[in-house]
Amino acid sequence: MDDIINTLSEAPLFATLTPSVLNDISKNAHPNAHKKGKILFIHGDPAEHYYIVKSGHIKLFRETVDGTQTIIDVLSQGNVFGHTLVFEENTYPYSAEIAESGIIISLPLSDLRDALYNDNTIAINMLRATTNRLRLREKELEHRSTQNASQRIACFFLRHTLQRKNDSLVIHLPYDKMLLAAHLGMQPETFSRALLKLKKDTGIRIEGSSIYLNTLDRLSSYVCSSCSERFPCNG
Amino acid sequence: MDDIINTLSEAPLFATLTPSVLNDISKNAHPNAHKKGKILFIHGDPAEHYYIVKSGHIKLFRETVDGTQTIIDVLSQGNVFGHTLVFEENTYPYSAEIAESGIIISLPLSDLRDALYNDNTIAINMLRATTNRLRLREKELEHRSTQNASQRIACFFLRHTLQRKNDSLVIHLPYDKMLLAAHLGMQPETFSRALLKLKKDTGIRIEGSSIYLNTLDRLSSYVCSSCSERFPCNG
Repeated sequence: MDDIINTLSEAPLFATLTPSVLNDISKNAHPNAHKKGKILFIHGDPAEHYYIVKSGHIKLFRETVDGTQTIIDVLSQGNVFGHTLVFEENTYPYSAEIAESGIIISLPLSDLRDALYNDNTIAINMLRATTNRLRLREKELEHRSTQNASQRIACFFLRHTLQRKNDSLVIHLPYDKMLLAAHLGMQPETFSRALLKLKKDTGIRIEGSSIYLNTLDRLSSYVCSSCSERFPCNG
Repeated sequence: MDDIINTLSEAPLFATLTPSVLNDISKNAHPNAHKKGKILFIHGDPAEHYYIVKSGHIKLFRETVDGTQTIIDVLSQGNVFGHTLVFEENTYPYSAEIAESGIIISLPLSDLRDALYNDNTIAINMLRATTNRLRLREKELEHRSTQNASQRIACFFLRHTLQRKNDSLVIHLPYDKMLLAAHLGMQPETFSRALLKLKKDTGIRIEGSSIYLNTLDRLSSYVCSSCSERFPCNG
């Protein structure tokens, strides 16, 4: 139980809640180990739970009537999903599949709903988080019009963990390239061509899930001239 | 003053507030008549006010360093914008321009902030509204991958005011076609070609800002087979 409360309190969404509110929302929480490929719920299912990723990766996606899949998001440790379905009589607006085996904690939306109507802090935290996500989506929509495929890949790189290693900068990709291609809404062959062009244009080196670069300037000026924000942006 | 409170209480965001809260948030409200082309604020300006459209149209947009404009939204009567900047030390994440002359009411974000921290109803209303907007954006992102330009135009048509007139169905466009093209993120020539294809494929007729169709079925099956939701959807 303490373990669940710890995981919750590490999620930015719940970080500022009092121990008593954390207790209330986690009293019916259940951690479950899931294997890659497991479907947690399908778009249109009645929404009864929301979830926190303790480990592994979750893919949120939608499918058109004629079978085309679009990835809404790929979530890692500490991310919460399904919580915006807290209002009455909702159904999930996407499907959720385990993209990399891990532990997912499920929590009843009804407990969150009670807390939401009793404690303004939760409502304000959720509003902040939803507003930030909305801005990210609006930026993504902008990039679909203003950036080419190579720039969109490089933009994803720039937003991910950067470390200094000897004389190089290293970016670690959180998950594999085919999932990344799908997340960016690209066909595998478009993604491969765009990645090749990116390497040629900016001199980055890719080894497995690590991207090496000599300076940030070359990559950031390559990407951010086609964005309305300046580097470094807030995500 | 009563006029301002009426406008506020007609906005879905504020519809469920008590008269006392409505009074609190509107005590420093100012209606202003603006001409087409007037810039209300620029992306990056410190956010001190939020706004309600009483009449006319507002275009929210962003511009990249190299000058490409992306339209975030075009808003009409009853729409509120800038309210998500209620948290401290924010700057506007887009620019706002009057797209059609009208009256815009400006209200201080500080009054909304006070009300937000004192009254859970506002936080919950704003959370509902922001969540709905987030879902719309996620659907738009899906459509950028799954729908062609003709389908995206038709999707916009289907989501706008539909009336029955003699034996036909009529859809009234809320604003002119060039603004619509920009709102959909299309170049004018792409938009014109896609509109021509749409007319040919579905038999719709366009006269000025009115679209005439014989049945909804043909248009909805043309559009919604490339969407993960069924017709009629919630926006």
